[in-house]
Amino acid sequence: MEIKPGRTKVGWIGTGIMGSSMARHLLKAGYSLRVHNRTPAKAEGLLADGAEWADTPKACAADADVVFTIVGFPADVEEVHLGNNGIIQSIRAGAIVVDMTTSAPLLARKLAEAYAAKDVTTLDAPVSGGDVGAREGRLAIMVGGDREAFDTVMPMLELMGENIAYMGPAGAGQHTKMCNQILISGTMIGVCESLLYAAKAGLDAQGVIDIIGQGAAGCWSINNLGPRIVRRDFSPGFIVEHFIKDMGIALTEAKAMGLTLPGLTLVERLYRELADDGGSHDGTQALMKVLEKMQ
Amino acid sequence: MEIKPGRTKVGWIGTGIMGSSMARHLLKAGYSLRVHNRTPAKAEGLLADGAEWADTPKACAADADVVFTIVGFPADVEEVHLGNNGIIQSIRAGAIVVDMTTSAPLLARKLAEAYAAKDVTTLDAPVSGGDVGAREGRLAIMVGGDREAFDTVMPMLELMGENIAYMGPAGAGQHTKMCNQILISGTMIGVCESLLYAAKAGLDAQGVIDIIGQGAAGCWSINNLGPRIVRRDFSPGFIVEHFIKDMGIALTEAKAMGLTLPGLTLVERLYRELADDGGSHDGTQALMKVLEKMQ
Repeated sequence: MEIKPGRTKVGWIGTGIMGSSMARHLLKAGYSLRVHNRTPAKAEGLLADGAEWADTPKACAADADVVFTIVGFPADVEEVHLGNNGIIQSIRAGAIVVDMTTSAPLLARKLAEAYAAKDVTTLDAPVSGGDVGAREGRLAIMVGGDREAFDTVMPMLELMGENIAYMGPAGAGQHTKMCNQILISGTMIGVCESLLYAAKAGLDAQGVIDIIGQGAAGCWSINNLGPRIVRRDFSPGFIVEHFIKDMGIALTEAKAMGLTLPGLTLVERLYRELADDGGSHDGTQALMKVLEKMQ
Repeated sequence: MEIKPGRTKVGWIGTGIMGSSMARHLLKAGYSLRVHNRTPAKAEGLLADGAEWADTPKACAADADVVFTIVGFPADVEEVHLGNNGIIQSIRAGAIVVDMTTSAPLLARKLAEAYAAKDVTTLDAPVSGGDVGAREGRLAIMVGGDREAFDTVMPMLELMGENIAYMGPAGAGQHTKMCNQILISGTMIGVCESLLYAAKAGLDAQGVIDIIGQGAAGCWSINNLGPRIVRRDFSPGFIVEHFIKDMGIALTEAKAMGLTLPGLTLVERLYRELADDGGSHDGTQALMKVLEKMQ
């Protein structure tokens, strides 16, 4: 299959903040898009830009050459793909299915097997870079699955991201995203404990960020989320509920591989405490609040 | 006091890897240097470059306008400054004493008080940037203590570093360095657990670093120490024994301030396990070995 704007038919399921921005890049490049979302109102912007509406994932995937999904939780991924109104009920042989949700590697392999029986190839292609990266087409995209499918859809991925890597067979994209989230769990606890110590020691916290953010302690989180913490701005960015989902997937997969990760285990527990205290929809920098409460 | 190469007399105590490189910048700029080190052999390079030897800290500080120290542990700092052969026994009124060791904030305040009784002002000015930063004069220098003394010695600090910040009264430099080390404890556990997961999941670990090191998970540690871990290169860099010292100081100060830091507590415990297993002189990236052993 060759990808061509104006000829290739695209199904797109999931038009939240990330999905809408990503799908819009395809629309603007000239691809014909049929979209579906659980909450139809969130698709209105894309419909106004020329996308066609579909009532179900099944309807969205009918006749499509490539179907993208970016939804919420692994259960949503499973429903959208394998449910009674799922993509698998209508997808044609030879099509390509790309799940860009951050989801479970084990589920990515399950999807790959289910679709293989229909001669459909799959990619798991979770992203990082947030709403800004999605809007600017500058996402990192970590891809697992069928290598030929990867090469085929590359021109479309390049519209959404600029750091795109093929990581291996089905699940490898999700596994790579888990590595990303595990690393973030470490940088976040470091950032919050560091700034908590700074406050308690009477230091100017922004001054601390300015000097430690440049050297061997430097990380994206201290330089981007640190100043928000100092301003007591706990709005997302990336919401706690989704980070807990991701860390939960990583812990489940780690356990399945016989792996103990004490740092991730600690940080995931702290984030669950934050959610229990009503912080589910805060940004991830709100980890600070749970540490403060502990004192 | 005005600082002038050729006229200002400098005492320098501590000529290890860091101290030798830092002192050499002063020598090269034309300052007359008298040096002391517990192990005299390590001062030979500076003596060959024109420094004068002193048998004790006391002898090193006699007649000096500014005395710098960068030694090992807080106990060494105390001995060099306040011991029977310490700086305080000979230092003249009006001189400035700068401790650049990473040491305890409480000790920095103790030194400031002891020297104040002799009309000597002090700075605590720990650095980060490692042996390379010291050699290239590109250290970050976090300074607490007397503001006027800071302004006075600034031309000398600028020979050693390029990111120099006054953080507040005595102890504030050390506190800032503790913030730096607390943050590193987080990035290190994140890096090692992330790469452990990557290996177990069968991913190409360097490929993972290449893609996750650029985005929201990015940090100095993954990009600089991650590749060493992948190559199984556990040589220092920054040695485990010193990092344990630093984390121990941070935990002691945190406790004194009534602060609980669960992430730092976990990571410090893991590093002590590493040291117990013979890893004291490894680089900090050897945290990986303790996590691997845990599986």
